[in-house]
Amino acid sequence: MAFPCVDQLEQRTQKLLQSFDGGPEPSYSNPISGYSLYQHNEPFLLDHGGILPKFEIAYESWGELNADKSNVILLHTGLSASSHAKSHPANIAPGWWEKFIGPGLAIDTNRFHVICTNVIGGCYGSTGPSSIDPKDNKPYATRFPIITIFDMVRAQFEMLSSMGIQKLHASVGASMGGMQSLAAALLFKERVGKVISISAAARSHPYSIALRFTQRQVLMADPNWNKGFYYDKVPPHSGMKLAREIATISYRSGPEWEQRFGRKRAQPSTTPSLCADFLIETYLDHQGERFCLQYDPNSLLYVSKAMDMFDLSASTSAETAIRRARNTLRLQEGKGSSAPENAATPPEEQVAACVTATPAAELKAKEELQDDPKAQLNDLKQGLSTVKDIPTLVLGIQSDILFPVWQQKEVADCLRETGNKSVTYYELDSMYGHDAFLLEVVNVGSAVKGHLELKE
Amino acid sequence: MAFPCVDQLEQRTQKLLQSFDGGPEPSYSNPISGYSLYQHNEPFLLDHGGILPKFEIAYESWGELNADKSNVILLHTGLSASSHAKSHPANIAPGWWEKFIGPGLAIDTNRFHVICTNVIGGCYGSTGPSSIDPKDNKPYATRFPIITIFDMVRAQFEMLSSMGIQKLHASVGASMGGMQSLAAALLFKERVGKVISISAAARSHPYSIALRFTQRQVLMADPNWNKGFYYDKVPPHSGMKLAREIATISYRSGPEWEQRFGRKRAQPSTTPSLCADFLIETYLDHQGERFCLQYDPNSLLYVSKAMDMFDLSASTSAETAIRRARNTLRLQEGKGSSAPENAATPPEEQVAACVTATPAAELKAKEELQDDPKAQLNDLKQGLSTVKDIPTLVLGIQSDILFPVWQQKEVADCLRETGNKSVTYYELDSMYGHDAFLLEVVNVGSAVKGHLELKE
Repeated sequence: MAFPCVDQLEQRTQKLLQSFDGGPEPSYSNPISGYSLYQHNEPFLLDHGGILPKFEIAYESWGELNADKSNVILLHTGLSASSHAKSHPANIAPGWWEKFIGPGLAIDTNRFHVICTNVIGGCYGSTGPSSIDPKDNKPYATRFPIITIFDMVRAQFEMLSSMGIQKLHASVGASMGGMQSLAAALLFKERVGKVISISAAARSHPYSIALRFTQRQVLMADPNWNKGFYYDKVPPHSGMKLAREIATISYRSGPEWEQRFGRKRAQPSTTPSLCADFLIETYLDHQGERFCLQYDPNSLLYVSKAMDMFDLSASTSAETAIRRARNTLRLQEGKGSSAPENAATPPEEQVAACVTATPAAELKAKEELQDDPKAQLNDLKQGLSTVKDIPTLVLGIQSDILFPVWQQKEVADCLRETGNKSVTYYELDSMYGHDAFLLEVVNVGSAVKGHLELKE
Repeated sequence: MAFPCVDQLEQRTQKLLQSFDGGPEPSYSNPISGYSLYQHNEPFLLDHGGILPKFEIAYESWGELNADKSNVILLHTGLSASSHAKSHPANIAPGWWEKFIGPGLAIDTNRFHVICTNVIGGCYGSTGPSSIDPKDNKPYATRFPIITIFDMVRAQFEMLSSMGIQKLHASVGASMGGMQSLAAALLFKERVGKVISISAAARSHPYSIALRFTQRQVLMADPNWNKGFYYDKVPPHSGMKLAREIATISYRSGPEWEQRFGRKRAQPSTTPSLCADFLIETYLDHQGERFCLQYDPNSLLYVSKAMDMFDLSASTSAETAIRRARNTLRLQEGKGSSAPENAATPPEEQVAACVTATPAAELKAKEELQDDPKAQLNDLKQGLSTVKDIPTLVLGIQSDILFPVWQQKEVADCLRETGNKSVTYYELDSMYGHDAFLLEVVNVGSAVKGHLELKE
């Protein structure tokens, strides 16, 4: 029996090995161009105690900024997207929300100034694991610190502040972007006018954690991953391909595949084989092939982990706030005494000591809370009560298996029950599953437009 | 950052390497004992043109066979199960349906003689890829021919015939076993008294094909898989572990995990890590660990592929029948002329020529059919019309994502519409997803008992 799918992996390894002969190292941001860079030259303390001595954010924008800078929409991306949401003269390639942004469209560039960023942790121009650690001028790789969705948003708001943008007209996003959109309202309630959260959640569900866990495991099992240190070697393209195939199952849904592929085989006249055979299999294979060298594997690990940890419950926010305060203090102490002035990154042990300093009593209280679903829901409500004065659109897709619609309903219900009088909740019957936010230009677009433009 | 999950894989490789030093080759059927063997010493032609020169079936049985051999229940297994459905003196370990089989239980051993087999293609005693090819006394590995669910059932009925069992009281199974249960009724309608099909389907859905495809891909990408030839080497334990983690997601469901694991972390006082961290992750890791050396990787490939190809539509059955007739003829010709008398396995090219002999016109008709969902459903109804005189219980689980409940409803509806007057259809609201058939002793058990014992 022939195994072209296995041969293909080996052939790519060989090809990649050849391309390293004297050639430049691969850069994941190569295919992305025409973005601007925000440079943050101060140390940035992360929620789990890590520190970025400095960071950069790649961003793109569309539409004119008005005189009082009050027409800004911050658009958050999904896990692996770049800041290129829409084509523009410096990069004419279609963006990932091409048909949603423009004059008269869902996000009307005649009215709004739209800013989209690549998240920190990513690989399309913003600081992430593939960026150079100033400590030794080598890529961070897995020396990059653990980041959270809150960290991504706090970094974005540093950028907004530097631009003199005090308050957003709206914080908008889908999937991980919908998490960020809600997180922005929680962290900076005075600076967010409206919120749109599409196909997202207020806390990650174990089923979606499981799906991302298998992707990470598959990637890390690729010998080329090499514990994250592959930047001058053959990258784990095989692991990335497999991770993308698993991800694609969670991004699209059964109903669409039933219509599009059914039980058709790619080459019906041949004997069935163990490599891709049915059309659905060649589709998954194709998605894996397209992605395997397009996104930094370490970024996938860090950013997907940030999604897993996402939880807007009051107790989690409180824990984070305490940890942040303790670490800030510790750092300031460190700066004032033993650590040299320019040692922006403190010794790892020191940070670890801060992070693990959650008292046993607090942990026990948390555990008890976790055994009581009702108390948990109240905890979430309390967490979301910060957003009670911000008009919010929550939109879910009934065929979404990654962020099931009950998670969007949970957000809407919690917001309403905490007294938010302006919550709009829509469910779409789209057959596209989680990816509907990229495809349902009319159904999703109208909801976005309506929410952004309605006077309240 | 530490990566114990990656180190663990490497450590197992080293340990396995050491165990090969002079020791015997690993045998997957080692942990299974106390089964009987049916030996079939004639060549057995498979649906896709392959030939097994001979085969064995491992089986176990419970309850007394009555005088006229009319009280037999053939119990079919899921993908990776052995014939050990229930403990007995020769193997006291609990079986996979321990609480469903016994005096007064769902399958009452005071009334029935239950036979459970390991499927061909498996690795628990029946002939499969890890068995010895008599041609060269080496394991078949991926020289093993492609098999179908129909092939498994035809082999089982050869065994029943040899035992003098003409007609089953019932054909019973869940998951892949539910496919076999239906297939038995289609192939041998005169020999099946009743049918029970739990959490199965009449044809595989592209979403379930996708889930099994990623498992195969992950396994085949493990360098230790070595295109299937690993029997005297370190087996692809890493690929198997990952495949099992993915499978586990589809076997269990969100609702159970929400209750059981929620967002709890294994070690809440530590910094989050990229290896298993949340309880749901340690659970998946544990499932992968348990399975990775327990089942033959090549069996996973062949048996899961057989599930993907499963389709009870009339057109598919007709195609198979034509192919079978052509190949039988060709074989007989080969035997009578050039091929030596003892060459039970014909040259591969010859078989390939038979298999690919589906005329272009037939393929075109099939393709047109596949573009018309209504015609497809009629095709399925026609296929199932063979079963119209056999009382059938179809049972589905509402939280099953691998075999969604609409697939069970489809089977029941088709059977009813073809004139079957004795179709029982139940939906269970169990939170256990696909695995409910192993866990819901009362809910599933009562339905099984009622159907088996009701006089009609």
